[in-house]
Amino acid sequence: MAKNKKPVRPKARLPKGLRDIDAAEIRAVKAMVSTIAGVYESYGFEPLETPAFEYSDALGKFLPDADRPNEGVFSFEDDDGQWLSMRYDLTAPLARYVAANYDALPKPFRRYQAGTVWRNEKPGPGRYREFQQIDADTVGAEGPAADAELCMLAAESLEQVGIARGDYRIRINNRKLLDGVLELAGLNPTDSSGDGLRNTVLRAIDKLDRLGPEAVSLLLGPGRKDESGDFTKGAALEAKQIDQVMNFVQSGSEGRGQTLSAVAALVEQSEIGRSGLDELTRMDELLASAGFDADRAVIDPSVVRGLDYYTGPVFEAELTFEAEAEDGVVARFGSVGGGGRYDGLVERFKGVRIPATGYSVGVSRLQAALEALGRAKDRTTPGPVVVLVMDQDQLQVYQSFTMRLRLAGLRAEMYLGSSGMRAQMKYADKRGAPCVVIQGEDERARGEITIKDLVEGSELSETISDNVEWREGRPAQFSVSEAQLVDAVKEVLSRHGA
Amino acid sequence: MAKNKKPVRPKARLPKGLRDIDAAEIRAVKAMVSTIAGVYESYGFEPLETPAFEYSDALGKFLPDADRPNEGVFSFEDDDGQWLSMRYDLTAPLARYVAANYDALPKPFRRYQAGTVWRNEKPGPGRYREFQQIDADTVGAEGPAADAELCMLAAESLEQVGIARGDYRIRINNRKLLDGVLELAGLNPTDSSGDGLRNTVLRAIDKLDRLGPEAVSLLLGPGRKDESGDFTKGAALEAKQIDQVMNFVQSGSEGRGQTLSAVAALVEQSEIGRSGLDELTRMDELLASAGFDADRAVIDPSVVRGLDYYTGPVFEAELTFEAEAEDGVVARFGSVGGGGRYDGLVERFKGVRIPATGYSVGVSRLQAALEALGRAKDRTTPGPVVVLVMDQDQLQVYQSFTMRLRLAGLRAEMYLGSSGMRAQMKYADKRGAPCVVIQGEDERARGEITIKDLVEGSELSETISDNVEWREGRPAQFSVSEAQLVDAVKEVLSRHGA
Repeated sequence: MAKNKKPVRPKARLPKGLRDIDAAEIRAVKAMVSTIAGVYESYGFEPLETPAFEYSDALGKFLPDADRPNEGVFSFEDDDGQWLSMRYDLTAPLARYVAANYDALPKPFRRYQAGTVWRNEKPGPGRYREFQQIDADTVGAEGPAADAELCMLAAESLEQVGIARGDYRIRINNRKLLDGVLELAGLNPTDSSGDGLRNTVLRAIDKLDRLGPEAVSLLLGPGRKDESGDFTKGAALEAKQIDQVMNFVQSGSEGRGQTLSAVAALVEQSEIGRSGLDELTRMDELLASAGFDADRAVIDPSVVRGLDYYTGPVFEAELTFEAEAEDGVVARFGSVGGGGRYDGLVERFKGVRIPATGYSVGVSRLQAALEALGRAKDRTTPGPVVVLVMDQDQLQVYQSFTMRLRLAGLRAEMYLGSSGMRAQMKYADKRGAPCVVIQGEDERARGEITIKDLVEGSELSETISDNVEWREGRPAQFSVSEAQLVDAVKEVLSRHGA
Repeated sequence: MAKNKKPVRPKARLPKGLRDIDAAEIRAVKAMVSTIAGVYESYGFEPLETPAFEYSDALGKFLPDADRPNEGVFSFEDDDGQWLSMRYDLTAPLARYVAANYDALPKPFRRYQAGTVWRNEKPGPGRYREFQQIDADTVGAEGPAADAELCMLAAESLEQVGIARGDYRIRINNRKLLDGVLELAGLNPTDSSGDGLRNTVLRAIDKLDRLGPEAVSLLLGPGRKDESGDFTKGAALEAKQIDQVMNFVQSGSEGRGQTLSAVAALVEQSEIGRSGLDELTRMDELLASAGFDADRAVIDPSVVRGLDYYTGPVFEAELTFEAEAEDGVVARFGSVGGGGRYDGLVERFKGVRIPATGYSVGVSRLQAALEALGRAKDRTTPGPVVVLVMDQDQLQVYQSFTMRLRLAGLRAEMYLGSSGMRAQMKYADKRGAPCVVIQGEDERARGEITIKDLVEGSELSETISDNVEWREGRPAQFSVSEAQLVDAVKEVLSRHGA
């Protein structure tokens, strides 16, 4: 007797932090990404695609969350024993690409890439382990003109997808300014390792928006206990040093020139600080000459950007309007993109410094913002015209109706299940069909078909006061000869603006 | 003294079997995929996106290469100890999706998906470990009308992207026919395990195109030693049984009716064979009534399709024209897509049989075929207009020129490097710039700019006999006032049809 093997059924479930994306979101995201790509192209960037995974050592450890530098990446061993990692952003693979192809590239090299990235992190509400970014980077351009241009591109991208001027701000800062402040405070900012002073200070400043100045002062000093009782070690700065840092991060005002003056007073005694100030001043001039005033781009010394690898200008695209979040709390949408200069990333491979600067949009976050504003496009594509099957022996006839509609450029399908009329009408409704095509036995004998308008019913109650009169003019259901099929369906579609 | 730490530089290299994709290919593939998606939409399919990886047990082991059922997939362990695998096709994730969301779906459920898949296999020329597919599947439709429709969709997709009628064939078969032949030969076709008789026979038949009938007969019988001396074990059929199988697989002819008659004679004594014959006959009728004749879709009993999981109709989209392959050999392009019915795939999860059928296009293979035919679209997007930087102190002026061009809807960029005029002209050339905008010190003093037409030079020698006369009419380089910048650039672009 054969062994009694009972099959084990796998459970149909998604791994945590992953999700399926439905038709409406796919269409909306596609429209948005295509618009952004159009802006990037208009700025001269060319598309490039790199693979989903790379050698782990080539990607390096540049994850934003410096608290866990060794985690956050999905990795696996290749059959030859080398380790591979799925890309956690689009910048690290670009650095590999540029290093490998440097001689053949036009310089400066401008590329954009829209792609999926993966983070092996704890998922949360709206926080997934797989998501999409769209980046533009300029490699091989030393001066702040390249950074200024990315700020313009960031602003234009937002406006093109439907965020009005005034509903967003590009906030610009420069890492060298803080280095200058730390230097003048008698501290050493050159240790840029994960747990070094510079990063501890950056992490503290990064919490200004969320926790407020008092908490940040504690994090710059002795440390801070949060509501849950957890203690975060501080940067151990002295009171005067804390004041210097806090003065700097709070020196931003609405006008760029005003902020530049305030910052100048705090850093111009330091060489590195002056260098950052010069770059910011150049960016201000270029933005102004291109028509980007303070209603679009401001200078904000509290902008940090998480990543360790930034070396000069950093910038963030922030939405300033309020909207209801998933948890029902009304709050600002906050950051939907950001970037900055990373002159050291290609150097890892080549040993020579190759300047680079980039900007990255978080696609899902921006899409969510557009939804909240009601400005997402392409939410609905009309469903197909559904040809009902009243008689399984006449499939060929229904199939030929369907094909005639398709050849006329219409979206059409024959019902492919085995259920009756009632279920087929429900199906057509669920598919968002604008109308159904029906031919029963009697109609077939007469060479006729019936078209039933499905959109009408829902519109009826809203717009028409006299149902009887309207129905006489535009009947919800009518019969025509088989030859008139295409024209009749087109007529129904045109009623609904399709 | 500090330790002398010499930094280890990672090598900038791609993992084997992966590749970067350049702008021209990205644009061409995007146009092609968009066209195919348009055909899928016109057939009533809706887009769906599933994640790049799934729980390994949910994906199962359905890889085409049945010789290595346990290999071929990239897998890694999640932090909770569960195993994840990157999707190797788009069908297995669809089965998981349908099983998880069955009640909420319209039935039949039609979805399409364009996406990347990964195979942990030995790469070769033109054979990568990461590639793109675009699939359409109908779940919940029992009858062959759903399969017939996918054959129509396959044919239309090919024609829409530029493969002419006559340059391709949809080849249709049904697994049940072979089961009938095996049954009538006194063999048991129900063992569909990896090494079972059915799969050994299928693998042998699958080699007919490549190795010819003699080799297949050996593989059906005692086995075969290839040129390298490697021996492949055979299915150990007897001579008469081999004849029966070979008669069947070679019974195809140009006309579908003729093939159906020939096949009928071979299988109609078997119940399973008759069932397959009925399905094929229905598909033939539906194809005919929709206008798909034998110049587009044929019945071919030698079609196998690798995957174990097919349960009825199988079909393959084959390009029939010859082209030069990468290795210089002129050969048929062969299969660019295929699919079939897989009624058991969702059952794995739910325990109830849910009929399903699908079609999948290999995006890169089809793209390569279009290239070979010279029918790939969108190969070239004109490069940006490049505004040269003649004076680093005047960046704001050049930036404002650039922005004016962009606001007029043109692709434009300011040169962002630090090199001189000569290098900038080379850069513009490499970028495919249609023209450059130049303003030196003297011109600035006069409020003028110079536009230099870069396309002209290469066209000149081909189309114009009298250079002098032509140059006078349409000068390659001319000056205008700053105010005329946009109009002048547009005039140059219009010369070149942009």
